Amino acid sequence: MSVSAVAADRSVCAPLPVLGRDVLVPLVTGGEVDYAALDYAASAPALQRVWDDVAAYAPYYGSVHRGAGYLSQLSTDLFENSRRTTAEFLGCRADDQVVFTRSTTDSLNLLAAVLPQDTRVFVFETEHHASLLPWEQRADLTVTYLNAPRTPEQAVATLEHALADREPYGPALVCVTGASNVTGELWPVRELAAAAHAHGARIVLDAAQLAPHHPVDLAELDVDWVAFSGHKLYAPFGAGVLAGRADWLQDADPYLAGGGASRKVSRRADGGVDVEWHTTAARHEAGSPNVIGAYAIASACKALTEAGFDTLVAREQELIARVRAGLAEVPEVRVLSLFGDDAPRVGVLSFVVDGWNSSHFAAALSAEYGIGVRDGLFCAHPLVRTLLGTDPQDPGECGAPDAAPGERSLNAIRVSFGAGTPDEHVDRFLRAVKELVSEGARWNYRTEDGRCVPVADAV
Amino acid sequence: MSVSAVAADRSVCAPLPVLGRDVLVPLVTGGEVDYAALDYAASAPALQRVWDDVAAYAPYYGSVHRGAGYLSQLSTDLFENSRRTTAEFLGCRADDQVVFTRSTTDSLNLLAAVLPQDTRVFVFETEHHASLLPWEQRADLTVTYLNAPRTPEQAVATLEHALADREPYGPALVCVTGASNVTGELWPVRELAAAAHAHGARIVLDAAQLAPHHPVDLAELDVDWVAFSGHKLYAPFGAGVLAGRADWLQDADPYLAGGGASRKVSRRADGGVDVEWHTTAARHEAGSPNVIGAYAIASACKALTEAGFDTLVAREQELIARVRAGLAEVPEVRVLSLFGDDAPRVGVLSFVVDGWNSSHFAAALSAEYGIGVRDGLFCAHPLVRTLLGTDPQDPGECGAPDAAPGERSLNAIRVSFGAGTPDEHVDRFLRAVKELVSEGARWNYRTEDGRCVPVADAV
Repeated sequence: MSVSAVAADRSVCAPLPVLGRDVLVPLVTGGEVDYAALDYAASAPALQRVWDDVAAYAPYYGSVHRGAGYLSQLSTDLFENSRRTTAEFLGCRADDQVVFTRSTTDSLNLLAAVLPQDTRVFVFETEHHASLLPWEQRADLTVTYLNAPRTPEQAVATLEHALADREPYGPALVCVTGASNVTGELWPVRELAAAAHAHGARIVLDAAQLAPHHPVDLAELDVDWVAFSGHKLYAPFGAGVLAGRADWLQDADPYLAGGGASRKVSRRADGGVDVEWHTTAARHEAGSPNVIGAYAIASACKALTEAGFDTLVAREQELIARVRAGLAEVPEVRVLSLFGDDAPRVGVLSFVVDGWNSSHFAAALSAEYGIGVRDGLFCAHPLVRTLLGTDPQDPGECGAPDAAPGERSLNAIRVSFGAGTPDEHVDRFLRAVKELVSEGARWNYRTEDGRCVPVADAV
Repeated sequence: MSVSAVAADRSVCAPLPVLGRDVLVPLVTGGEVDYAALDYAASAPALQRVWDDVAAYAPYYGSVHRGAGYLSQLSTDLFENSRRTTAEFLGCRADDQVVFTRSTTDSLNLLAAVLPQDTRVFVFETEHHASLLPWEQRADLTVTYLNAPRTPEQAVATLEHALADREPYGPALVCVTGASNVTGELWPVRELAAAAHAHGARIVLDAAQLAPHHPVDLAELDVDWVAFSGHKLYAPFGAGVLAGRADWLQDADPYLAGGGASRKVSRRADGGVDVEWHTTAARHEAGSPNVIGAYAIASACKALTEAGFDTLVAREQELIARVRAGLAEVPEVRVLSLFGDDAPRVGVLSFVVDGWNSSHFAAALSAEYGIGVRDGLFCAHPLVRTLLGTDPQDPGECGAPDAAPGERSLNAIRVSFGAGTPDEHVDRFLRAVKELVSEGARWNYRTEDGRCVPVADAV
């Protein structure tokens, strides 16, 4: 059956089956309700298909690349086929390499480790810390932090200026997010890639928030590398991916030193040790590979492709429109945006509520409605400070509530969803926002261990 | 119920239930047989208990450390409780930290990254590449490779000499395996730790092969750190552990830069970025934690503790004795040993067969008997070369067959087993060795893609 035939076979309105849809959680107001997981941007539930594939494979688990036995051969094939499936999902070019890492953070730290000596890195201050911070860990790299643009066009122009002005005109890397983990807004990746290449730079796409929601095609976007995490792609088994150009990857020392990355090791006459490293993706995959994690990613890639991204995107855009329209009816709610109302986006949206501490609001959504969102600065402190209008130089603490209930918020609330989200979760969320704003919380909350929690003796 | 009561409740002869015990694999000689997984030293099957725990948790999966929702709180508790369970399993001191990594290799690379400037590292050439190679990745570290000792006493004396002779007398680290991944022999960890400390050095224990077979107690062994992998501890979900002294861990830059490790991030007036890093284990765990991997490790720790290590060790020692006695009846078999017949050991044993290429032998065990072992140099090239009596300076290639069938072997065959191994697998292995040696292979094999495989048109 072709991909399009499979897609046509499904209703545009049916969420993909995910684990945890039937999980009941207690409410402080009494009773239980099925959990509304609206924190996909932090971590998404596993697709049922991914779980079923992992469960079917688990009895056949064996050592990868290392054994003579049947299950070792089978597991090695499964692992290397997972690499191929992932390459296809990402539209990799023929000579690209797919390295399995443990997460997007790990992937970008790997890339930072393999950059040529004295590479200049260009990154917008709006990036997630995983894209913002790896580069300064290497003393020889120079990082230019670009101010937050207010339009996609301004982003491209800002980057072009910075790249053109760089001195000396040596190796350069641009790191850019595909979809913001705070606003959900899409960045002009193709245009930024063209600008990078026009100025002799390379570009890596942080697709952690993009890949679960939108097709990513390296060749078509003309980006040099892409990074993403399995756990945001409905495959939470500890694996991530860095895929792209092989040359810088293979010219550098291995990311981790150990077995699997080493082809030959021998003592030298002077007492030292000589090592010949692999020149494939294995060079950066020392240690026994996480075959279940890699297979789970491949399974998710297949499931999303077979469901049809057209269908998934159409359904998600309906949910986004519904959430935005619902929040627009609440004057106390201010949605955070960099590029404005018309910007294309994925199902990630942050907001603050006038008169509410965000941690307090998020705690009430959980305790009174069984809704899981996130409050805080979302590991993108400079961006959130900019969007809140607070001082971007003011150090805020990730995830910590910032003020007593009722005080002006220095944090935000984020709601996010995806292929497994039923309409009811979104509807419940909108109802909860409206009730909390108009009626207030029905329980008392206090700060404990850095989080807002319901107070047991309340009401 | 107390731990000892649980242990007493089980027969010394019953293997722990693991996944894959019923998996049938085809034989080239016709028919199918249940797979005999005898490659535990590379990767062990999941304990049924570990799988059941992961499966029970999977619907409750949520983002760790990051969400306000019920499942995020539950998952965060599960993750941090997994850390505590692991600390108890390892006998950690009160101020030790447990960092979840992706593997032993990753753990030792993390430790290499946090060593104080100009630390001198002392490591025996007999180590697995994961313990042998991470240290030279840092230009400021000086590595002293110690020659293979032939007795535990010689190991301690060699180390003492090297430490005493070091110049200057600055920070030093000793890295030593607990149980060899080639011979299964136990190293004198407590004595080496005493020697290290007497000479102002610290010591890390590579417990990848020890922890699955034997209790490991940091405080009792007086080692500073221990590293191990989940996938060798019946928990193959992409996680590992580095546990031990907090000071060097917290004095160093984070291993990975990104969210989770960063507490506060702000722009500086000069355009740069200031970061305040966490000072807990989270400092080295940037990115979303692999909560399933960590929980699987904790589940395995509990399962092994509850089964009772006395019981597990007693059963494994029976199997070891049976394998060694069986192989001793075959004059063509030479078992590789550093410390001799009387050395205490775990269920890992390597050997060569006169007149056989090891890869050919391993391929025949798989294809004709459904037995999974490993052939090669086991990511410990200098050690295996030493044991084989070939030139330890001769670079051999990991896992590649070295000669045509019938030629003298430059590789070895490794058989390894553990808590899930039934007697029948060991008996089948011994029968297979005897039949292959006396009757020869019933099929033809050739080298393909670096491995020996059955030739389809044979017989």
